Amino acid sequence: MTTLADLSTPCLVLDRPRLVDNLARMSAACRRNRVALRPHLKTAKSIDVARIALAGEAGGIAVSTLHEAEYFASAGLTDIQYAVSIVPDKLARVAAIETRGARVTLITDAIEVAEAINAEGERLAHKFHVQIEIDCGERRSGLAPGAPEVIAIARLLAAGTGTAFAGVMTHAGHSYACRSLVDVERVAEIERSAAVAAAEAIRAAGIRCPTVSIGSTPTALHAGHLEGVTEVRAGVYMFGDMFQAQIGSCGVEDLAVSVLAEVIGHRSDLGHILIDAGALALSKDRSTEAVPNDVGFGLIAALDGKPLSPQMRVARVYQEHGLIPVPAPLTVSDFPIGTKLRVYPNHVCMTAAMYPSYNVVDGGHEVTEIWARTNGW
Amino acid sequence: MTTLADLSTPCLVLDRPRLVDNLARMSAACRRNRVALRPHLKTAKSIDVARIALAGEAGGIAVSTLHEAEYFASAGLTDIQYAVSIVPDKLARVAAIETRGARVTLITDAIEVAEAINAEGERLAHKFHVQIEIDCGERRSGLAPGAPEVIAIARLLAAGTGTAFAGVMTHAGHSYACRSLVDVERVAEIERSAAVAAAEAIRAAGIRCPTVSIGSTPTALHAGHLEGVTEVRAGVYMFGDMFQAQIGSCGVEDLAVSVLAEVIGHRSDLGHILIDAGALALSKDRSTEAVPNDVGFGLIAALDGKPLSPQMRVARVYQEHGLIPVPAPLTVSDFPIGTKLRVYPNHVCMTAAMYPSYNVVDGGHEVTEIWARTNGW
Repeated sequence: MTTLADLSTPCLVLDRPRLVDNLARMSAACRRNRVALRPHLKTAKSIDVARIALAGEAGGIAVSTLHEAEYFASAGLTDIQYAVSIVPDKLARVAAIETRGARVTLITDAIEVAEAINAEGERLAHKFHVQIEIDCGERRSGLAPGAPEVIAIARLLAAGTGTAFAGVMTHAGHSYACRSLVDVERVAEIERSAAVAAAEAIRAAGIRCPTVSIGSTPTALHAGHLEGVTEVRAGVYMFGDMFQAQIGSCGVEDLAVSVLAEVIGHRSDLGHILIDAGALALSKDRSTEAVPNDVGFGLIAALDGKPLSPQMRVARVYQEHGLIPVPAPLTVSDFPIGTKLRVYPNHVCMTAAMYPSYNVVDGGHEVTEIWARTNGW
Repeated sequence: MTTLADLSTPCLVLDRPRLVDNLARMSAACRRNRVALRPHLKTAKSIDVARIALAGEAGGIAVSTLHEAEYFASAGLTDIQYAVSIVPDKLARVAAIETRGARVTLITDAIEVAEAINAEGERLAHKFHVQIEIDCGERRSGLAPGAPEVIAIARLLAAGTGTAFAGVMTHAGHSYACRSLVDVERVAEIERSAAVAAAEAIRAAGIRCPTVSIGSTPTALHAGHLEGVTEVRAGVYMFGDMFQAQIGSCGVEDLAVSVLAEVIGHRSDLGHILIDAGALALSKDRSTEAVPNDVGFGLIAALDGKPLSPQMRVARVYQEHGLIPVPAPLTVSDFPIGTKLRVYPNHVCMTAAMYPSYNVVDGGHEVTEIWARTNGW
């Protein structure tokens, strides 16, 4: 029997009961809103997690890289949305995945790209399925719902012999700036209405718009209603992180992924301890800087996963060192060298990307399984 | 022939002539100061880079993880300093590397760890080589040069049957806070004198102190003199990055590693373009936030490596998107979708850690070799 105390640090710990609870909460939210859930696997990047996340769902997933699409298609998943703007020179990789049996739905917001996809589809005698990306206020990518290019691209994709028009999608990334659930619900309605408005404009032009896809973890959980939406994408809900806990997507007691680390040094003169989880092991994400309770680079918990103090956090990181000021009434001597601790990260998508696998526990200390992750591009 | 234009993005590009020049500059600085150069391979994590960095040097390296030690020992390197505090439960991995022929020199600043190393060495009938870490002002880890524990630990390590005392080491990480070469030279002298003072205190107690090891890229390059020091460790000098360029360790024209990315979208209404290199491809390191010319998450160059404008930088990152405001007189339409660009990262140690390999170019566009990297723990 391997326990957490036996593992070489730093490494990832995944608490399966918390994962299962988080998945159930999002499934229930989507059922309540009568929309399909398309789990976004950019966070988990693991077929083992995907299989649990897909239990009882329609079977579609979203990914953020073609490498993820290749990995999940190889594992047998067949309905994959690549939720980042496609560029023409990546179409050969898409076609290669699709000839092995999966569908990879693409997104674009540019008419020249839609034309290039159609040309490449004609050249390959292949039909690429493409959605139009709508900007619902994030101001990153996408077209305004009422932009004339939306109809022009939909028409081109629907008419092309190398393309099929697969609907519209949007992402309310700006929900991360919300600081209350009332605010999140307001952004969710903006997200919903932008996607639905674009779909209605397309339909009014006589073009079939099969899918209306929205999503971000906060809006997916807290939308008031999702009329006109067909599916919701979300990813970080599976694990949660300190940032999500502070904007109301989950509680600290729901966080399913932590970094196992070990105390490697003391400075009793300065009142801090050092762990072997630094900038590479935790990432340099500082998203909690923007919320009221800044936890530096992560919140410290005991080996059993319980936070030791709301103030005990990784305050500084170096490449392989994390520096933790010890808050009173605790003292440095409460943490002998060799003590194992767990760190709840600020942004789990960034932190998990540094590791090849999850050490799975069922709420306790025993490592019951090891689940592989895939990283890179 | 593969050229940069053929590569799937994002990926790392390594300019070999620049690497060779950077290596030569550090070698010359160490020769000038009559100290051995121990290249720190936490940045490059590649045996191909190590072999070039070691040409003409004594052969010793430093590493920041035991995984790196295992990798470089497997590749035949035999003099490895593990420059992060050892903890007793990692000694089994150290002993396993050493039984295959390499020496892994350890560091500690704690008497209880020195005792535990000796006990484990006795148990395994093995001699661990251990240095004492000195704090020269970084205030992270290490003992003050005059602390009585320095002598006590040296005596314990020298007398132990499971240990050999291997000298003292320090790291002037606070040189990164310097904003002028005069300041760097001042910190270099503080670093040197702290290490030498500790060594002299140990020698005055009748204990042989064979090695006096210091190092950080800025202090290694700009020390006024290094009397009493036997070796210098440095790592980031091999590649350089935007942060190092701004604190005077190198120029932008010396940066040997960049991320190759592709324009995936436009927002002409907002004046920005998007590339397929975001938070994972560049890292969320914001070290240039602290220097006068903030380059966000990286400086943009054309495919040939020449910066397009001192103001053209990745201003925001999302997991897989980088957002670049296009500075006048350039316009969004100067960057058609599909354009390949290069990004010089803020902190190359963090950025390179996301990639499995380097695409090597000899100053031009042709990829002449692919060099593997090793990541993780």
